[in-house]
Amino acid sequence: MLRFALFGCGRIGRMHGHNLVSHPKAELAWVYDVVEAAAAEVGAKHGAKVAATIDEALADPAVDAVLIASSTDTHIELIQRSVEAGKAVLCEKPIDLDIARVDACWAAIEGKNPRVMIGFNRRFDPSFKAVHDAIRAGEIGDLRQVAITSRDPGIPPVAYMQVAGGLLRDMTIHDFDLARYLLGEEPVKVACFAQALIAQEVKDLNDHDTAMILLETASGRQACITNYRAATYGYDQRIEAIGETGMVKAENRRPHTMERWGADATEAKAPVLHFFIERYQEAYNAEIQAFVEAVEAGGPMPVSFEDGRRALMLANAAYESLASGRAVTVA
Amino acid sequence: MLRFALFGCGRIGRMHGHNLVSHPKAELAWVYDVVEAAAAEVGAKHGAKVAATIDEALADPAVDAVLIASSTDTHIELIQRSVEAGKAVLCEKPIDLDIARVDACWAAIEGKNPRVMIGFNRRFDPSFKAVHDAIRAGEIGDLRQVAITSRDPGIPPVAYMQVAGGLLRDMTIHDFDLARYLLGEEPVKVACFAQALIAQEVKDLNDHDTAMILLETASGRQACITNYRAATYGYDQRIEAIGETGMVKAENRRPHTMERWGADATEAKAPVLHFFIERYQEAYNAEIQAFVEAVEAGGPMPVSFEDGRRALMLANAAYESLASGRAVTVA
Amino acid sequence: MLRFALFGCGRIGRMHGHNLVSHPKAELAWVYDVVEAAAAEVGAKHGAKVAATIDEALADPAVDAVLIASSTDTHIELIQRSVEAGKAVLCEKPIDLDIARVDACWAAIEGKNPRVMIGFNRRFDPSFKAVHDAIRAGEIGDLRQVAITSRDPGIPPVAYMQVAGGLLRDMTIHDFDLARYLLGEEPVKVACFAQALIAQEVKDLNDHDTAMILLETASGRQACITNYRAATYGYDQRIEAIGETGMVKAENRRPHTMERWGADATEAKAPVLHFFIERYQEAYNAEIQAFVEAVEAGGPMPVSFEDGRRALMLANAAYESLASGRAVTVA
Amino acid sequence: MLRFALFGCGRIGRMHGHNLVSHPKAELAWVYDVVEAAAAEVGAKHGAKVAATIDEALADPAVDAVLIASSTDTHIELIQRSVEAGKAVLCEKPIDLDIARVDACWAAIEGKNPRVMIGFNRRFDPSFKAVHDAIRAGEIGDLRQVAITSRDPGIPPVAYMQVAGGLLRDMTIHDFDLARYLLGEEPVKVACFAQALIAQEVKDLNDHDTAMILLETASGRQACITNYRAATYGYDQRIEAIGETGMVKAENRRPHTMERWGADATEAKAPVLHFFIERYQEAYNAEIQAFVEAVEAGGPMPVSFEDGRRALMLANAAYESLASGRAVTVA
Repeated sequence: MLRFALFGCGRIGRMHGHNLVSHPKAELAWVYDVVEAAAAEVGAKHGAKVAATIDEALADPAVDAVLIASSTDTHIELIQRSVEAGKAVLCEKPIDLDIARVDACWAAIEGKNPRVMIGFNRRFDPSFKAVHDAIRAGEIGDLRQVAITSRDPGIPPVAYMQVAGGLLRDMTIHDFDLARYLLGEEPVKVACFAQALIAQEVKDLNDHDTAMILLETASGRQACITNYRAATYGYDQRIEAIGETGMVKAENRRPHTMERWGADATEAKAPVLHFFIERYQEAYNAEIQAFVEAVEAGGPMPVSFEDGRRALMLANAAYESLASGRAVTVA
Repeated sequence: MLRFALFGCGRIGRMHGHNLVSHPKAELAWVYDVVEAAAAEVGAKHGAKVAATIDEALADPAVDAVLIASSTDTHIELIQRSVEAGKAVLCEKPIDLDIARVDACWAAIEGKNPRVMIGFNRRFDPSFKAVHDAIRAGEIGDLRQVAITSRDPGIPPVAYMQVAGGLLRDMTIHDFDLARYLLGEEPVKVACFAQALIAQEVKDLNDHDTAMILLETASGRQACITNYRAATYGYDQRIEAIGETGMVKAENRRPHTMERWGADATEAKAPVLHFFIERYQEAYNAEIQAFVEAVEAGGPMPVSFEDGRRALMLANAAYESLASGRAVTVA
Repeated sequence: MLRFALFGCGRIGRMHGHNLVSHPKAELAWVYDVVEAAAAEVGAKHGAKVAATIDEALADPAVDAVLIASSTDTHIELIQRSVEAGKAVLCEKPIDLDIARVDACWAAIEGKNPRVMIGFNRRFDPSFKAVHDAIRAGEIGDLRQVAITSRDPGIPPVAYMQVAGGLLRDMTIHDFDLARYLLGEEPVKVACFAQALIAQEVKDLNDHDTAMILLETASGRQACITNYRAATYGYDQRIEAIGETGMVKAENRRPHTMERWGADATEAKAPVLHFFIERYQEAYNAEIQAFVEAVEAGGPMPVSFEDGRRALMLANAAYESLASGRAVTVA
Repeated sequence: MLRFALFGCGRIGRMHGHNLVSHPKAELAWVYDVVEAAAAEVGAKHGAKVAATIDEALADPAVDAVLIASSTDTHIELIQRSVEAGKAVLCEKPIDLDIARVDACWAAIEGKNPRVMIGFNRRFDPSFKAVHDAIRAGEIGDLRQVAITSRDPGIPPVAYMQVAGGLLRDMTIHDFDLARYLLGEEPVKVACFAQALIAQEVKDLNDHDTAMILLETASGRQACITNYRAATYGYDQRIEAIGETGMVKAENRRPHTMERWGADATEAKAPVLHFFIERYQEAYNAEIQAFVEAVEAGGPMPVSFEDGRRALMLANAAYESLASGRAVTVA
């Protein structure tokens, strides 16, 4: 049994809290949020203690692990403090928006036997994992190209966008991680086109809502990422990978399999699952499961701090490409 | 090169005329229709002579084959006369509506080396043929069940229904043939439920527009036929077959592969191909091809007179089941 | 909060136990099984008391409801005793294999304000429910034909088949209920063809593994049920319904959306979900939810005792049709 | 009736010859090829005269139009000579590999009322045209992103690659045209990653077999092209376009609709149509039809000389991006 402290009780924190209490080997011991009422609600719902400060929770020797679902700017501090307190950490993406701070964080915890996993949930989606496993098992021979389609169902609130670090560090960062996961090699070249076509508020923030990014590894494997912030038909999440002997794909998912056939259209299906909480429900549960197993086994984390750092480096390279008009090389 | 006389220049006769002139080894020498203007039009279009009587065409020693696409009540006479004239015959289904007349026809031609093929076009559809060939090749092991969905896009004109012999002899007869083709054994038991649910004129004719029929062979293989006369989404033509090791299916076809994805529906496709001339265009061409090859090779016909007779017997058995409320045994 | 006693801790009882404890408004208070060890295991797992007899559990005034998942021959007694004890009942299908006993059961409980729901789980499947709701909402106009494909992934154990009442009362009974649910009218005519083609043990039991059944309502709506016991590609569960303005269908479900494309095959997907526990996981949860809501609301049960009785009558009629070779009329 | 001279009797010339004689309003009057035997064969097959020189055919006042299907390096001369002879021209892509020569050609013919159409066949594919028409009809609101997947089934012969101008001018040029056709605006920015991953002979030629290209228009619309030379599952030709209210897609096509369902895979379909002659058969016929109609109507050509020039400019820009590592601006 792994006892957790949950830091952050917003939308994604509440989801993680629910997943933790549903897991047979996890227990939600403490909850904390800067908004006390949020923590109190989650604590009451799941029978967890509400911590007045993170220290109160970290000081509890019964706590084995910390799940960090607070705002991005708090991640670094919470990771450091949790590692110092000897806890295993599962931290939502991104680690931070500033690579220098990420590197400093690692320097600070590196010597303290850090057990830190970054929450790139899509690696745990059954369909995406099946594609990954088929590639690694050699089912398509040598891998050549990966295509990732990743579109949100709507523009986020302005308040969210103001602190999210921009499209590429907030949304595309998942796709950068997925590209690395599927490619099996580090991308070394990045080119990016990005635009604000959908909403004036995105333009006002100098942010983007429409982007296409190319990646290439040293051996020449290529990936293309397509991002868009307002797909009317749902949360569009698809991947495909071609290799020397074939292709593997994973398609979108829907709430049910009903089809309508009529004079105007045939085989018409429901919109795809609306957003990440619905689409990646199984993935979030499998993520907790993988974290619990890794902590119990004592081995390496399934998604490492370095994975979080690498994804941020690719996002930064994409911004650099966008600004310079050059294909940017990533060390 | 096979020289044809075409008897019947209505909708399906015109289609066959077009297919014949497009075939590299076929030539349309003569056309005939009781409506002279119809024959004249087809003759002019394809450069064929217009026969004043069928005798004029049959008397031409250059004619190798006759394609009979006239009204059903003329089939028997035209088959007999053509066989007597030493011509090979490709005759549209059904042979006739009366099994006694069919038997008499066979008795009359049996000794004259008859080369008669019945136009069950669906056997030549690339998708249905692929299913048939997969079954025969043992891909699903021993065959167990066949399901045939066969729905027209609309109620035929009253004048057509008055002479067509009823739903089971006009429309289902194709499915009876398809069932025999796929089952690979003769059905020996037939049960039928049929209704007139769609249109008052069907009821007024004591005809049916909605039917479900079960068939069973001596070894216990089963088939189910589903008929309906007014599918709004197009001409619904599907088959599936399950055996001990798997299932093979053939789905509907559409004019193109475009899909629409929006807030109300995703993957919405065009209606399926409207009716038999569109849906079975390739099948009709392959049927001509199979006829030409069989005549040239001198071997047995790919769809025999007996196949036409058997399908009619199943239709008759289905009517008997409907009237008696019994599962009817077919000898 | 609804407190349950669970009678029967076999495979399906264990699944229900898990579903009950996961439900926010349900509590598993007692478990009972004739095999003490089975009850002890489930009780220990979920923190429920183990009843030495059903009376011990029924005597507990804190118990609101009973979930009956024991062997079929015990259903009648357990329903009666539970109703007499004033408990609401959710009973697995079928009520019993003998219609006379079913009628006697109803006579015995009728006056006691019985709140009994029969576990026809498929009505609660999101895809099948969507088809049902679309039909009832008039999306396809007047309903004309329903097709139900229902195939198990393998022959059950002989010991199971010996007491299950035969294919039509054990497996098809779900499809009879689904047909009634979708048709919206009582079937009044039944014809059935059934065979033992797959396994010698089925033949030895005079049971069947391959069947096709036709149903018709008084207004002429038709349904066709296709059953098979050994589909290699998974638990094949599909429905379609055509009406005057269109068709609605529900297709099979798979564990993930991965497709393989290669030189031999394209768009190849995983086998469909293996069997009822995987396929109808959401349905079983929704069934519990519907029961809890109905008990709390005090209104009629979403699936009534009469629904269970009607499904059995259709199974009996199908057996009679099989024996007599007649289409059997159901009162 | 439009009388054609066909210049070039290789694989694609023979296909065009067949399409011309099948067209009700076209006639194949002359054929010419530098390889006399090739011209003789096509001439004999279709009853066309064999020209000893192109002048012989161009001198025939009965010739209305020229179809140029010879090697790329001859296109410019043949276009000029045909225009000078007063013939309408349908010329295979690309116009030439050298933009200076293309510009000189235009300068030479500009004043001579040139009626020149470039053979970008994909614009006439029923599925791609349906996507285009849906976009233009406003079905997805303002267009935002286009994705084009375009993969050949195998590496071309070395002799072909030696003169084809490289992947981007030979294969991608179709996709550049398709991007322009779908975007409805000129791309002004191009970035390209390209590799030789599949075959040593491609590397030896300094050519590429694996490429991804990004395009952007002045208003910010984006397109991504994915190219690969050796898709084992057939000729992979797909497009999708997303706009403010939805998405439209066109998927691959197969020879038939059969699916295989078994213990290892379900819904497995045939490989997609092998290569351009099969995949774009309808498109090539529609292309001839569009040319005939445009010549008869006397209006502008459906695919203009300028369309051919623009596609080449994008290919050149992509090569420049590949060499410089910069996103290249197209005037």
